[in-house]
Amino acid sequence: MSQRTGILLVVSGPSGSGKTTLCRRLAGENEAHYSISCTTRSPRPGEIDGKDYHFLSREQFLSKRQNGEFLESAEVHGNLYGTLRSEVVQYLAVGRDVVMDLDVQGAELVRKSEDTSIRATLVDLFVMPANEEELLKRLSGRGTDSAEVIELRMKNAIEETRHWSEYTYRLISGTQEEDYTRFKSLIVAERLRVSRITSRKLQ
Amino acid sequence: MSQRTGILLVVSGPSGSGKTTLCRRLAGENEAHYSISCTTRSPRPGEIDGKDYHFLSREQFLSKRQNGEFLESAEVHGNLYGTLRSEVVQYLAVGRDVVMDLDVQGAELVRKSEDTSIRATLVDLFVMPANEEELLKRLSGRGTDSAEVIELRMKNAIEETRHWSEYTYRLISGTQEEDYTRFKSLIVAERLRVSRITSRKLQ
Repeated sequence: MSQRTGILLVVSGPSGSGKTTLCRRLAGENEAHYSISCTTRSPRPGEIDGKDYHFLSREQFLSKRQNGEFLESAEVHGNLYGTLRSEVVQYLAVGRDVVMDLDVQGAELVRKSEDTSIRATLVDLFVMPANEEELLKRLSGRGTDSAEVIELRMKNAIEETRHWSEYTYRLISGTQEEDYTRFKSLIVAERLRVSRITSRKLQ
Repeated sequence: MSQRTGILLVVSGPSGSGKTTLCRRLAGENEAHYSISCTTRSPRPGEIDGKDYHFLSREQFLSKRQNGEFLESAEVHGNLYGTLRSEVVQYLAVGRDVVMDLDVQGAELVRKSEDTSIRATLVDLFVMPANEEELLKRLSGRGTDSAEVIELRMKNAIEETRHWSEYTYRLISGTQEEDYTRFKSLIVAERLRVSRITSRKLQ
């Protein structure tokens, strides 16, 4: 048995901040379990059910929500999104860390969870580019989207970024390697936190 | 100007825990200023004034204490020990991190400092071996001390170790490299803490 409770690391940030890459790399190095969200929106080309999202019908989603299976859920642009408790609670209980990327609305719901064991283990981080110029560069970087789409994304990203001060930690993104070093430091450091230690013995 | 306040990282742990090595390496890599303590005890062979300690006469020490120059001070086994405010405050103010190793008594005094700016920036860590067997191994490792001296050190170390749960973070020491990686993660992560950010702008 682990001598500490698992960490619930919630990562938010505007589109293009690289938050998903950070979360997936941490999970890929087996440092944490990556919690996969549910959504009722249609898969985009290349997205895989059970890897990128659990794709559910609206009926399936609502039924699970009715059963209290979601830790948090919200409607965004007409689609439902949510995190299943089963993606989180069972891991934390055995001292396994869980990482997830959530929008500011989802993070706020987790922060206000009525489940005190969730709140006690939560660490939240906001990832953001250094300035609006950098944000625009990242949002338009894919080169496949129209000016209108980029403009809408930019508007949303600026709005999302306004919420950074609601988080405990903030990472201003630099290079991918710098970002990952800092990101990983966060979970390594949080593992040293005395309040997470469940065994009171010397060892 | 830095956009955050400096971190005051206070490290405690029993003799042989490697805390001083960790602090000095962090300072050696220019990640923080190492705060050198004052003491009225005599230098041991090899100890250098201004590097290991500021060695003061009892009169000098008491005069500085009278002038309020110490952040914390205490008498241990008939010798006075203390940290000068000048070793700490001016660095923190410009966003430079400060690291110091203090015994549990000194750490407790810093934690209770009447100076709220000190308390706000404080991060405290207790470094300890995994168990008493390992502790004994480390204490007797130098091979130059008598059984009585080792026994006394062991008694003091066990007493010191009882205080670990008063700290925010605890590091159970493994190899020197593992310890340093975790130790450095702590300061890297603490630098991301939103409550330290003094600029409210996007950047």
